[in-house]
Amino acid sequence: MTIFDRLLENFALHIKLDVPELQQITSAVQTRCLHKDELLLKTGEICRNLYFVDSGCLRVYTQDKNGSEHNVLFCPENWWAADMASFSGQVPAYYTIAALEATELLYFSYQSLEQLYIEVPKLERFFRILAQNGFSLYQRRVNSIISRSAEERYGQFQHLYPKLERRIAQKHIASYLGITPVFLSMIRKKR
Amino acid sequence: MTIFDRLLENFALHIKLDVPELQQITSAVQTRCLHKDELLLKTGEICRNLYFVDSGCLRVYTQDKNGSEHNVLFCPENWWAADMASFSGQVPAYYTIAALEATELLYFSYQSLEQLYIEVPKLERFFRILAQNGFSLYQRRVNSIISRSAEERYGQFQHLYPKLERRIAQKHIASYLGITPVFLSMIRKKR
Repeated sequence: MTIFDRLLENFALHIKLDVPELQQITSAVQTRCLHKDELLLKTGEICRNLYFVDSGCLRVYTQDKNGSEHNVLFCPENWWAADMASFSGQVPAYYTIAALEATELLYFSYQSLEQLYIEVPKLERFFRILAQNGFSLYQRRVNSIISRSAEERYGQFQHLYPKLERRIAQKHIASYLGITPVFLSMIRKKR
Repeated sequence: MTIFDRLLENFALHIKLDVPELQQITSAVQTRCLHKDELLLKTGEICRNLYFVDSGCLRVYTQDKNGSEHNVLFCPENWWAADMASFSGQVPAYYTIAALEATELLYFSYQSLEQLYIEVPKLERFFRILAQNGFSLYQRRVNSIISRSAEERYGQFQHLYPKLERRIAQKHIASYLGITPVFLSMIRKKR
């Protein structure tokens, strides 16, 4: 077992890589550890890396004018994380990303990924599918905020993130659902 | 000048195709004409094709419980259009797509595009970049609805869609901005 196992399993979901290709990829990967609550990206900074969560959990959030935080997405192990608009355009980020737990990351810098696309063209396929899936996820998330009840959104959260509920604070789940922690606790009791 | 010129120019933004590749692509392309107000996709249907707008303009919208329509996106010439979540997962669509003007489309079916990815792997790169750009656009759109004033959103609309304003009905622009036509007309007079 190497530190790349989870990452390479993730690639294997969509593409088949040979040994030289695997070597080219792993030689481009960098690693980073975050302690709980450490910031990975701040709104306004340029998101220079695309992260793969090897263990732990990130949250992606925004802060409104009143200082309240709104959780947009959680990224537990095997998820990819970035402010995609910031990363792909190398422009200032809209989101902030922080660790909810001690978190181990593997990542590609923007430049190293651009170079890898040339050396390992199969990665275009992988990241095309990843971008499409991310797009769909984000679209569903927006639609559910607009058109679903809090109870339905809670069910969708449980389905999308099995077992995550026991790991992270109530307030973060409530913020993801757009409700108060008190209301979340009422929904849970009702179930 | 052929019917494929605009489409091939669009591909050339991100990838360089040789003559056999161009032939494989053009042999997979299909065409469709829509008259003004004709529906291309209805909420709940599966979006089976990815469309390129050769001329005219589409609008992508949702309908709420009260029957009011909300314009999410306009797709004039040179834009790609689909319910991306529906197309990439072949699941029921959340959005409805209709023609705002007489519109000429080129399109790939889901199956023919999957086949083309095998025959012309460079297309993975093109559609990776397209998916990333679409993701970014959608993210910006959501963020601007959440955090920008109507005046700012109007400025963003004008920037994203130069000259479109003169072609489409006020009510559609107002719906895109999330305001009433009367309020839109007030913003315009102020400028």
